[in-house]
Amino acid sequence: MPRSRSTDAARLLAEGRAGDRAAIARLLSLVEQGGDAAAGVDAVVFPESGAATTIGLTGSPGAGKSTLVSALLAALRVRDHRVAVLAIDPSSPFSGGAILGDRVRMSDHALDEGVFIRSMATRGHLGGLAVATPQAARVLDAVGYDRILVETVGVGQVEVEVAGEADVTVVVVNPGWGDAVQANKAGLMEVADVFAVNKADRPGVSETRRDLEQMLELSASDGTDADWRPPIVSTVATTADGVVELWDAIEGAVAHLRGTGALDERRRDRLGAELQRVVTARLAERAGALSTGPTYEEALGEVLGRRLAPWRAADRLLDAD
Amino acid sequence: MPRSRSTDAARLLAEGRAGDRAAIARLLSLVEQGGDAAAGVDAVVFPESGAATTIGLTGSPGAGKSTLVSALLAALRVRDHRVAVLAIDPSSPFSGGAILGDRVRMSDHALDEGVFIRSMATRGHLGGLAVATPQAARVLDAVGYDRILVETVGVGQVEVEVAGEADVTVVVVNPGWGDAVQANKAGLMEVADVFAVNKADRPGVSETRRDLEQMLELSASDGTDADWRPPIVSTVATTADGVVELWDAIEGAVAHLRGTGALDERRRDRLGAELQRVVTARLAERAGALSTGPTYEEALGEVLGRRLAPWRAADRLLDAD
Repeated sequence: MPRSRSTDAARLLAEGRAGDRAAIARLLSLVEQGGDAAAGVDAVVFPESGAATTIGLTGSPGAGKSTLVSALLAALRVRDHRVAVLAIDPSSPFSGGAILGDRVRMSDHALDEGVFIRSMATRGHLGGLAVATPQAARVLDAVGYDRILVETVGVGQVEVEVAGEADVTVVVVNPGWGDAVQANKAGLMEVADVFAVNKADRPGVSETRRDLEQMLELSASDGTDADWRPPIVSTVATTADGVVELWDAIEGAVAHLRGTGALDERRRDRLGAELQRVVTARLAERAGALSTGPTYEEALGEVLGRRLAPWRAADRLLDAD
Repeated sequence: MPRSRSTDAARLLAEGRAGDRAAIARLLSLVEQGGDAAAGVDAVVFPESGAATTIGLTGSPGAGKSTLVSALLAALRVRDHRVAVLAIDPSSPFSGGAILGDRVRMSDHALDEGVFIRSMATRGHLGGLAVATPQAARVLDAVGYDRILVETVGVGQVEVEVAGEADVTVVVVNPGWGDAVQANKAGLMEVADVFAVNKADRPGVSETRRDLEQMLELSASDGTDADWRPPIVSTVATTADGVVELWDAIEGAVAHLRGTGALDERRRDRLGAELQRVVTARLAERAGALSTGPTYEEALGEVLGRRLAPWRAADRLLDAD
């Protein structure tokens, strides 16, 4: 008799806790699959999670996020944290060189059992990423990583949403005119708890800091986050300059959020939002199931023949269900 | 007695066809609303649509898409097309100067009744944009615009998906190292029918063309789109240099796609994909309804108390429905 999904997940969780990296990878793959596979994992992992701190790092492509994450890893290991990285990767399978290079750089940590790095693919899973990421973070939490870095490209609606869903969020910008403005336009100003001006050995650092300060002034006069002004830390990830200061700023933000009760509030808000997303994901599975069979083919035929509007066709399928 | 939604939409459609711009704007607002409002519009608009050609323009922020769209508008008006623009705008309400500037530039065409320009906001409507955009294009088609330009920022998963959903898609890149590579990483290479190297008065045009050619070689050896090699057109949108050549390339792509039957196939594929999205949207409305009331509050309370995993909670809500 095959064991149930939850029994399998419970076994994988125990193996993962004992240091079996393949078991952890398998749990994350089940989470990425979604549906009943993810539900089975969540049932055993959820009660065992809640101890880790999640740190989001986001910014435009090329800002140097992966290098910064790699440098942060080293700083965190010195402080004896067990660290996991979730790299949310919206790139095409046809990747350019940069991402491959970053992943190779990450392999500096490949032999360190206190570090676990996983790229999660988003392609072809519309909305699936927003559902999978918090679950994946819980898996890493439950197997004993106490700091979880979630690296996202802060462009696009889903990506910005995911970027804002950590305990504390670092927005990475570069020196020079325009980068801070683009971050603002993308909606990143509203999710930032800390700013890193990375590649700070290049010209334009003071202009970028000034742009950020100005935009923070605007936010502050808006009445939002009146009790926390995101610090701005200059870093050069390739040489690790400023990385310890960045980590101190992150810890400072976490301590502040914990002190005011905002951290608990954020976590509750995130769980509430996640519940709604999972309900939607489950309903989308049903929508997929409704998109096969003779009733669907007939409705699609009428739509393609332009005799039936898509919304009418959808309602017919739902009524027939 | 209040009139039904479809009757209202039918009246607005008739007014829009007679040249009433407020009626067109109202139809688009109903589409943006989603739900029954959008369904009512679609029921009357869908049978009256199908004549227009939709042209997607996409690329990274700052590539000059809006200026290029404005220049294309002028070229299209010379050829007596009636042209509508849907500018899909993922920016925060806190916008920087550039978008405002672009919209002001668009106002060159504000007094031309053969031009209609509409920005569609995406913020806070996760997935809603992908549902609303094809419907909005049909509204503009049904009221008599024969060329519809859909301008999107080609970053992020949802945005790239929307960018690829036109009859023909133009990917806009800039000269200099890296921009073509970023477009490739974002998945834009796969949706491009035509490339515009905009700001071609800057250095690096030949390098960018070479990068694009190389990536096209890779795609071609992959076996995809073996019968169409996207032309690469250099443009300077601010002076309209190359814009007539760009339009000729777009028309060439449309003619090719029409000739091979690929245009019909794309339109059918898009309608099929749209039907599935509308089914999901309708189910998501139900998910929203499932996220209120005592059963929901009880399940959420157990999740927040960490006694119930989100997936189990979701399934309980769906079973209780």
